[in-house]
Amino acid sequence: MLKDCLENVRKSFPLVHNITNYVTVNDVANVILACGGSPIMSDEAEDVEDITSVCGGLNINIGTLHKTSIEGMFRAGKKANELGHPVLLDPVGAGASALRTNTALDLMKELKLTAIRGNISEIKTLAMGSGTTKGVDADVADAVTEETLDEAVKFVKGFAASAGCIVAVTGAIDLVSDGETCYVIRNGRPEMGKITGTGCQLSGMMTAYLTANPGRLLEAAAAAVCVMGLAGEIGWGRMQDGDGNSTYRNRIIDAVYNMTGNELEKGALYELR
Amino acid sequence: MLKDCLENVRKSFPLVHNITNYVTVNDVANVILACGGSPIMSDEAEDVEDITSVCGGLNINIGTLHKTSIEGMFRAGKKANELGHPVLLDPVGAGASALRTNTALDLMKELKLTAIRGNISEIKTLAMGSGTTKGVDADVADAVTEETLDEAVKFVKGFAASAGCIVAVTGAIDLVSDGETCYVIRNGRPEMGKITGTGCQLSGMMTAYLTANPGRLLEAAAAAVCVMGLAGEIGWGRMQDGDGNSTYRNRIIDAVYNMTGNELEKGALYELR
Amino acid sequence: MLKDCLENVRKSFPLVHNITNYVTVNDVANVILACGGSPIMSDEAEDVEDITSVCGGLNINIGTLHKTSIEGMFRAGKKANELGHPVLLDPVGAGASALRTNTALDLMKELKLTAIRGNISEIKTLAMGSGTTKGVDADVADAVTEETLDEAVKFVKGFAASAGCIVAVTGAIDLVSDGETCYVIRNGRPEMGKITGTGCQLSGMMTAYLTANPGRLLEAAAAAVCVMGLAGEIGWGRMQDGDGNSTYRNRIIDAVYNMTGNELEKGALYELR
Repeated sequence: MLKDCLENVRKSFPLVHNITNYVTVNDVANVILACGGSPIMSDEAEDVEDITSVCGGLNINIGTLHKTSIEGMFRAGKKANELGHPVLLDPVGAGASALRTNTALDLMKELKLTAIRGNISEIKTLAMGSGTTKGVDADVADAVTEETLDEAVKFVKGFAASAGCIVAVTGAIDLVSDGETCYVIRNGRPEMGKITGTGCQLSGMMTAYLTANPGRLLEAAAAAVCVMGLAGEIGWGRMQDGDGNSTYRNRIIDAVYNMTGNELEKGALYELR
Repeated sequence: MLKDCLENVRKSFPLVHNITNYVTVNDVANVILACGGSPIMSDEAEDVEDITSVCGGLNINIGTLHKTSIEGMFRAGKKANELGHPVLLDPVGAGASALRTNTALDLMKELKLTAIRGNISEIKTLAMGSGTTKGVDADVADAVTEETLDEAVKFVKGFAASAGCIVAVTGAIDLVSDGETCYVIRNGRPEMGKITGTGCQLSGMMTAYLTANPGRLLEAAAAAVCVMGLAGEIGWGRMQDGDGNSTYRNRIIDAVYNMTGNELEKGALYELR
Repeated sequence: MLKDCLENVRKSFPLVHNITNYVTVNDVANVILACGGSPIMSDEAEDVEDITSVCGGLNINIGTLHKTSIEGMFRAGKKANELGHPVLLDPVGAGASALRTNTALDLMKELKLTAIRGNISEIKTLAMGSGTTKGVDADVADAVTEETLDEAVKFVKGFAASAGCIVAVTGAIDLVSDGETCYVIRNGRPEMGKITGTGCQLSGMMTAYLTANPGRLLEAAAAAVCVMGLAGEIGWGRMQDGDGNSTYRNRIIDAVYNMTGNELEKGALYELR
């Protein structure tokens, strides 16, 4: 049950090492704390092995990729692999630049990833080994809708199987698959796209969920997606006249902070395919 | 009309490439989303040309200047010039250090800038080719007041003419000129100076406005200044007992998010000189 | 009186140079503004001496240590020492990695520090010259409680005496000593640990307090600790149903913004040992 995944995070207080972008890093740290984990950030190549060793999981996000931090991503990832820690890749902007696309593909090749989370354009880029995305947001032409759902589920399952890890594609409808089963999740609000970094936040939180739920990784990844989407709905419900995207950002993290296992069970909207 | 400038941003959803400081970057991203644009951040030299190519405008801010990102500023700027994208420079702290002053002057020399936005001390530094500012805030001796207004308008017009671009000096009274006309804008609240990064936010938003309004750049720059100041007034009006600068930050971005063209027309306080 | 320390910050508007991590930097800047100071961030080795020269105090925080910024820490620190500015070290994560531990120890050796502020595990690491901490949070085994208080006071006094500077250990009970006297402070809320960066914020604010109160450094450091803890209590008192750690973050900074000297005198809970 999703509820157990949530409660395992609150019980085990997983320490998550984040190599992430400087745009959304503060919100990533606060959402990891909100869900019950504890974040550490470190991207310096000489620092990352020690830091990953005291943590339980690793979140790699290429949102503001620097050549100096790429080495850190590989060193942290290899150490995490050695230690059996879950490793998540968030390929922000893959398809928008050669450096991002190639770095993401190299990370996939050289590391054993537990999960990849991105929008449909980024994930397609990785699946094709190339591609074009409209910046860091999903190309509209690629959007997962009720009309394109069957095809999208098949694509995500296929990519998860070939990549050998969980793949989470988030958007209007979210898909999370390990290659065999696919969670189709319908939580969330379109207004979440008007806040910078809800995707990055989800990646950080998902890493905490994977770390705290080693025996049920697919369910844990899906639970994190439901928590984020449901928090978006709860946060939206608390919006008042005059509130906008900056307040909404706070309310979503607040909703993650306050969410109980029972609320999650009751509010999660998903089906298995 | 200013209203059209605002609506053009909401209609065209301009993608803005930001090379900016890590202090205020999250608020810059959220304010660009709030006004109707979409932000991407990238400062790595090898990454910036690809990123600028998928965007419509470029915002360069030297608030936490690194030698490694200076190359990225030049490469992104040259690519943006090639593509005919608007390029804005925010010379944060010019005058406070030789590295900042010289980098800003070099960027002015080697790039074709569309606009420069800063406080009066920073802009004077660029105009003089040297100077001293009190950190990142304007030197009080330089403040644009009703008493010094005539002289300040003359100075800003002159500098805009010699620099060959729009110059926006923001403070208690804001001045925006293309060398011929000068908008004198009296929106805003003094308490905005107690929030880090309202200037950086304005630079990001102004870049979105310039990108979405190629045929009316001066008016677009002035519109962005009015939006920010008016959002500061609206946000202040929603402050409650016990609220302070952190909540005020959220309320300002929220006000940008909710602002309509008609509200802007009604609330903008400016005259042309 | 603590009240005078607070009022001296509001009167003298101290400019604080921060070399700090990119996770919590925005909140650090806003809390320095909230308490009455003015922040500048710069970590580039070529930039820091100029920036420190226009400031009044220096805050060094190793929370996301980069090899490229280590040189900046030493150059800024030496320049600040030359100029007689207060220098504070926040050894975030000392004990969690060799790079962090060694850098913190080297900074202690080569710079004349005015104050060191950290959690008990970080401070123990520096005192021992080695150690292990659970990431960036204090090891529970080390927690300062009523039971371990006598021993902890003795430890902090001893370390302050041997380090030759003020030492502030913050946690459930906060200890601030110059080697002779020790403030034992009981302000604050446990929920502050669910927000990223309350410690970093305190370090920034403490630097502003040290800068504005050169004749009473120990009292100034203790006042900053009381302000942060009391703001945590006031902010918590304003929490509403559904609020969580993201809103709490805003409310704490807001409370710092609104705090008066008299409120501080009335709310500060401390004894001298």
